[in-house]
Amino acid sequence: MSETTGETTRRRRGGGRSGNTRRSSGVAISQLPWQIPEILDSPTEPLSAEGLAAVDDGAMRILEEIGIDFLHEDAKMHLKAAGADVDPDSSRVRFDRALVREMADKAPSQFTITPRNPERAVPIGGRNQVYINVSSPPNCSDLDRGRRPGTRESFRDLVKLSQYFNCIHMVGGYPVEPVDIHPSVRHLDCIRDKLVLCDKVMHAYSLGTERVEDAMEMIRIAGGLSHAEFDAKPRMYTNINSTSPLIHDWPMLDGAMRLAKRGQMVTITPFTLAGAMAPVTLAGAIAQQTAEALAAIVLLQQINPGTPVVMGSFTSNVDMKSGAPAFGTPEYMRATQMSGQMARLYGLPLRASNACAANCPDAQAAWESAFSLWACTSGRANMVYHAAGWLEGGLCASYEKFVMDCETLQQMIAYNQPIGTTEDDIAVEAIAEGNIARHFFGIQHTQDRYETAFYSPFLSDWRNYESWEEAGAVQTPERANKIWKAILEEFEAPPLDAAILEELDAFVARRKAEGGAPTDF
Amino acid sequence: MSETTGETTRRRRGGGRSGNTRRSSGVAISQLPWQIPEILDSPTEPLSAEGLAAVDDGAMRILEEIGIDFLHEDAKMHLKAAGADVDPDSSRVRFDRALVREMADKAPSQFTITPRNPERAVPIGGRNQVYINVSSPPNCSDLDRGRRPGTRESFRDLVKLSQYFNCIHMVGGYPVEPVDIHPSVRHLDCIRDKLVLCDKVMHAYSLGTERVEDAMEMIRIAGGLSHAEFDAKPRMYTNINSTSPLIHDWPMLDGAMRLAKRGQMVTITPFTLAGAMAPVTLAGAIAQQTAEALAAIVLLQQINPGTPVVMGSFTSNVDMKSGAPAFGTPEYMRATQMSGQMARLYGLPLRASNACAANCPDAQAAWESAFSLWACTSGRANMVYHAAGWLEGGLCASYEKFVMDCETLQQMIAYNQPIGTTEDDIAVEAIAEGNIARHFFGIQHTQDRYETAFYSPFLSDWRNYESWEEAGAVQTPERANKIWKAILEEFEAPPLDAAILEELDAFVARRKAEGGAPTDF
Repeated sequence: MSETTGETTRRRRGGGRSGNTRRSSGVAISQLPWQIPEILDSPTEPLSAEGLAAVDDGAMRILEEIGIDFLHEDAKMHLKAAGADVDPDSSRVRFDRALVREMADKAPSQFTITPRNPERAVPIGGRNQVYINVSSPPNCSDLDRGRRPGTRESFRDLVKLSQYFNCIHMVGGYPVEPVDIHPSVRHLDCIRDKLVLCDKVMHAYSLGTERVEDAMEMIRIAGGLSHAEFDAKPRMYTNINSTSPLIHDWPMLDGAMRLAKRGQMVTITPFTLAGAMAPVTLAGAIAQQTAEALAAIVLLQQINPGTPVVMGSFTSNVDMKSGAPAFGTPEYMRATQMSGQMARLYGLPLRASNACAANCPDAQAAWESAFSLWACTSGRANMVYHAAGWLEGGLCASYEKFVMDCETLQQMIAYNQPIGTTEDDIAVEAIAEGNIARHFFGIQHTQDRYETAFYSPFLSDWRNYESWEEAGAVQTPERANKIWKAILEEFEAPPLDAAILEELDAFVARRKAEGGAPTDF
Repeated sequence: MSETTGETTRRRRGGGRSGNTRRSSGVAISQLPWQIPEILDSPTEPLSAEGLAAVDDGAMRILEEIGIDFLHEDAKMHLKAAGADVDPDSSRVRFDRALVREMADKAPSQFTITPRNPERAVPIGGRNQVYINVSSPPNCSDLDRGRRPGTRESFRDLVKLSQYFNCIHMVGGYPVEPVDIHPSVRHLDCIRDKLVLCDKVMHAYSLGTERVEDAMEMIRIAGGLSHAEFDAKPRMYTNINSTSPLIHDWPMLDGAMRLAKRGQMVTITPFTLAGAMAPVTLAGAIAQQTAEALAAIVLLQQINPGTPVVMGSFTSNVDMKSGAPAFGTPEYMRATQMSGQMARLYGLPLRASNACAANCPDAQAAWESAFSLWACTSGRANMVYHAAGWLEGGLCASYEKFVMDCETLQQMIAYNQPIGTTEDDIAVEAIAEGNIARHFFGIQHTQDRYETAFYSPFLSDWRNYESWEEAGAVQTPERANKIWKAILEEFEAPPLDAAILEELDAFVARRKAEGGAPTDF
């Protein structure tokens, strides 16, 4: 807690509507306390033992017979040292299956990432499931201002929502891309904003050496850590995507290797849309996804054995009429659950997403997201990316959808509470009493428990039709609209030591003066 | 098929917009063919073996120590004959647990109901899951005409939708209550309409002797069956609700007993809203639900051993602020899954519902329904009541919600298809080919499969934002609105032999002349 003892809370700067100079007397919503859900249910496993073995064998044949392209010389060097079959005349690397399993075994099946506020540390793996806000859309939308490209203001708004909601456990990449900040310095401003507005686990994009190194340095500074302390345990994470089929590109590999060297977490998420970048058959797409992920895991375990890595699943289907990706589909659900089986086979945590293809926060968005969330929970995904705010297959971050998703995330947390079956829970005496009273509202057994017995939603409207209509027949997105405004109005940034903030700002200023990260435009 | 060989198709009578005199050249939607989904996944079981035994023990203690009130003298007589402890001075009946299990064992764990079109026979139990349209709301709504009390016209519209959609396997009670038909003859007009417009398995309300007997007779006539043929196997079903806590009322018992005598199916669904008519604890509510259901099952097995019965689950929580029932909640999901465990313990099929509390077909309606449907599937419910069209906790049947629910039901059917893991599915050669081509759209493996590889929704809009916006930014309910209109426009009633229709109409005329069913108003 040493980094927060200064108590000099730094608030939002640079205008905006609320000013945030006073603590709002109202409270936007009554939300669940911070907690990490544990999935107690057995996972849903669409693959039989034979099916699982067949997909594993397929993945291994891809690695052995076809191989994966690594577009990074250092990566090839490390893979050669690991014992992989590296083609000196191309980027192709082939892997013996024994090597793959040996290297995957070095990765931990469970670990903890600790952000600048250690009370927001998150366990990754096992039965734990953590939720991460939407990342990387170029656009954002809300009911008042419509759809528009992201800016620093909307970026900060969405970071604040991510900090506010206890059901968001980690902050992902940029919740919207702030195109009003030049790409050379965007990462500096964005990571600074995130570190000031948010005390949860941070992500860094693997988009070139400078950005990754700057991100690690800023997260180290914000945590008040020495370099040795930073390196001692996971403090942050990145996500890399393969360029499916079967390629790992330079920037992603470079970032992943830099994090691995310092013991930081890497998710490897192949972009295996079935029918487009992977076979049209789900088993084939998952075999390819598995092969692409494991190839990178071999590399990272060779660089730093024990590096925390997560197997990412993003496999879905495309609309075969248009080629557009679809999410929250039956195929997406099954692919996610199959990915869970693969991850558990290799003893790795699983990442999936709360994704949808809908263009607005309507019923389609809700059922696609609910089905995605179902897939994550029944497939026992340990990390749920894009858990709140995602629309349009990831091209838009919706303020209202963010609030709606947090409602369903809370419901998922409530769903994963264990069911009591003590004599008190079975309540035969209470039933005898209720039988005489003809209802249970007033009996002691109810009175003792009713305040906490059931999950209480903040967004659902459970009034009868007449009351709902009389109050204006307000639909879900309009209710969510009121809530995000109230949250932003009352938002207060978490405490950050003034000296740390000064150091952070000095770093940003220096790196800006140096020109930030090189850009090719 | 003898009952349909006449081929004299009787169409809708009495006005309406479409007239239905020609076959529409267009097709409203491309839907999945008729099929009964089989739930291949292991069910989700929130209760441990010990927890399950504790809830079972609780149910048995309720039956042994407290007992159930049977407000029907014949029922008491039958229960006394079965060996139950019948209080001569009250309606209370207590049951020894050995008797309960012995009688429950007489009920089949799986059976088939055969409607007038034997091609629409449905298997109940095992891994089968069947979907039934919304039943019994007093109101209906659509985007054009708003919310209004049900009429015969809206009743018929919703029956037509139930017949049209292949994912609706059985027709439930009245999809909306047609209040413009006098209650004394409402059942005659309604069952006639249903039998003419629909060839799927029919439901009869247990609302008094005459209505039940008329329903059985009309379904017998429509099937072209002798009395012996009707009695020989399940042809129809009813649903009875206990008056929780712990009462079975006269009309429901009377109807159930009449169906049981003729070997017809009965679902027993206690109305155990936790915190109101049952304990506030889920385990207590499920113990009570189980006891209430089993008590009636003892009765029906005593009357006719082997009568097909289904254990109904309707347990949900109430909003403890208002007392209003809530559906699609975390508690509803768990209650449904726990009910599945109880039903399987006693070897009985399970009924649950696709329910929600939302007041309009918006995102809340969609996530509550998706969560309910998830509960039904993960809990392995064999019958999903109210699967399409339900809003407002059952007080309104929405035309648009009906279409939206059928979209998600189709997705559930697609979800339950087995996953192929042959060498062809794993597709290592296709991956090698795709690796060279850099995408999979054009390769032979994709070309051979793309038309059927993925489920294709009829309601989801997967276009990109720009195309969607250019086309009017049409949201889900508005798209559903267009679809139900197209369906009603092109609707054709299934074939019905002219002689059978004549007999049916003569029966209705005679019973109307006799005054129909007595009413107390």
